[in-house]
Amino acid sequence: MRVHAYAAPAAAEPLVPTVIERRDVGPNDVLIEIKYAGICHSDIHTVNGDWGPQSYPLVPGHEIVGIVTEVGADVTLHQAGDRVGVGCMVNSCGECTNCRNGNEQYCLNGMVPTYGAVDRDGTITQGGYSTHVVVDADFVLSVPEGIDFAAAAPLLCAGITTYSPLRRWGAGPGKKVAVVGLGGLGHMAVKFAHALGAEVTVLSQSLKKQEDGLRLGADHYHATSDPDTFERLAGRFDLIVNTVSARIDVDAYLGLLAVDGTLVNVGAPAEPLSLTVFSLLNARRSYAGSMIGGIPETQEMLDFCAEHHIGADIELISADRINEAYERVLASDVRYRFVIDTATLG
Amino acid sequence: MRVHAYAAPAAAEPLVPTVIERRDVGPNDVLIEIKYAGICHSDIHTVNGDWGPQSYPLVPGHEIVGIVTEVGADVTLHQAGDRVGVGCMVNSCGECTNCRNGNEQYCLNGMVPTYGAVDRDGTITQGGYSTHVVVDADFVLSVPEGIDFAAAAPLLCAGITTYSPLRRWGAGPGKKVAVVGLGGLGHMAVKFAHALGAEVTVLSQSLKKQEDGLRLGADHYHATSDPDTFERLAGRFDLIVNTVSARIDVDAYLGLLAVDGTLVNVGAPAEPLSLTVFSLLNARRSYAGSMIGGIPETQEMLDFCAEHHIGADIELISADRINEAYERVLASDVRYRFVIDTATLG
Repeated sequence: MRVHAYAAPAAAEPLVPTVIERRDVGPNDVLIEIKYAGICHSDIHTVNGDWGPQSYPLVPGHEIVGIVTEVGADVTLHQAGDRVGVGCMVNSCGECTNCRNGNEQYCLNGMVPTYGAVDRDGTITQGGYSTHVVVDADFVLSVPEGIDFAAAAPLLCAGITTYSPLRRWGAGPGKKVAVVGLGGLGHMAVKFAHALGAEVTVLSQSLKKQEDGLRLGADHYHATSDPDTFERLAGRFDLIVNTVSARIDVDAYLGLLAVDGTLVNVGAPAEPLSLTVFSLLNARRSYAGSMIGGIPETQEMLDFCAEHHIGADIELISADRINEAYERVLASDVRYRFVIDTATLG
Repeated sequence: MRVHAYAAPAAAEPLVPTVIERRDVGPNDVLIEIKYAGICHSDIHTVNGDWGPQSYPLVPGHEIVGIVTEVGADVTLHQAGDRVGVGCMVNSCGECTNCRNGNEQYCLNGMVPTYGAVDRDGTITQGGYSTHVVVDADFVLSVPEGIDFAAAAPLLCAGITTYSPLRRWGAGPGKKVAVVGLGGLGHMAVKFAHALGAEVTVLSQSLKKQEDGLRLGADHYHATSDPDTFERLAGRFDLIVNTVSARIDVDAYLGLLAVDGTLVNVGAPAEPLSLTVFSLLNARRSYAGSMIGGIPETQEMLDFCAEHHIGADIELISADRINEAYERVLASDVRYRFVIDTATLG
């Protein structure tokens, strides 16, 4: 099956319209007609080769929603007409401890990313900037009614990436949660933390997006460029979700945590960080990392979104604006996620 | 009240016999006739001025057990004749969130260390290498029958320092726990983790103390000087308690953790450490720190020790051997804690 897509022809080159091959629908496969695909910062890093050499042409996109058009003989969970989603992974071994525990993102034999990776059948995965995709049913999520469909796409990466650590580290009533950075990930973290009942503070470089932050559900908003912020908020938070991938002064942020508090990174700078152990020791604090979420938790997140009417704040674009959108993502000029209308790909 | 003690007359000088003043017994005070005092590595760091300038003469010692000889009018929990213990702190504000939650070690107004610190009445605290001490009753623990009294002294620091993180991070049946370093702290961590029902592994520089480790309750013992260790045990542990204060290769140890595992330092090198965030991210791991334990948890630990017949493995010495013991602690030549018989102080 040959389908329309947008692909990077080589590292750091603008994306161009193309046609790619999708595999036949196997017994446990789902064929999805993609409706919307979010643009994640990782897409840009990957196509640019920032995270290592890639096989080109490369179709990015791991925030995918669409409609099921065909299912394999063994598929019971999904059927034609269903609203579904696909996130950052499309396969894993299914047999290791982590897969069996619903932590497929940490598959000990290596999960298969949605694009630019060797799938278990030996083909190279191609992502969501495309009209159709064939995905193993175990990695296809149900997108309930009650979430705007275009606004649902970013939930599959930005959503689960922030929902998972908030749940794991107990964001909820009585808890003080800070979100560092108000971008694609940060704006979802604020919505979730608020919906979970926590007291939410945004820590952003400046107060430029303060009005947005409060509208999204934050109770407080502080500029990290103001050194007073770190003094005034010392020992304040139970949980800090850091959505900024750049290097941060870890000790400064740890100092904002109360006893037993956790600072969790959902992105990682390539270079090592420096950290004074005393910052952990002097209030039994933890520094943690979290990467997307497992399939069962992603479904839980989508159901939570439907129940609480949560979607991403998006700017819907046509495919011919993808390269312009990349420029704007790099300039942090998006509130808060670009989503491609895949009807414009053809 | 003037009492016999051993004190450092100045930084890095040998300790000498001396006589010090103890305050009158106030309404909430307990006068303790000290029977045994453990020698902790921190004593040596402090008297040497490694952790900042001190007021001399300085009497170290924060692993104290003894018999109550007098109590103030308001004291109800202890009475003359009781077996009691005093650990690393003798006071705190009692009013902040952390004190109210039994986390006095993280008192927001500063807990008062057992020696070398300004107490809330303005005097300088003097530690347990002494025949008597007067301590606020809220910081006096009960030492149940069933623990050898001399072997109980190190529980007040080495014991609670390792018990607390094991409990907080869920050491127990079905959990794989590693202990890094088999010294004063490490040997207690092994005993506790074993008694709590965990599968215990010692990670020590060499296999020199392997026989001891297995006798103390370890199920496995590996040398960290063997690079194969880090490959063979990759992703193995739920919890690693690092009792070594020197700098370690944090990424290497994080690599030994399973999904959701925690590496916890109970000591801290002075210099910052380097850490690659991806080591946390790629299995939702945490790097944490823990400092002694609160008063309620210290009592819980002592009761646990009585129930499980746990004490430290000690070498009992007379006071005139303190300086020699310091040399041997620095050379890691002790299995596993020196304890001073305070009857020899006079």
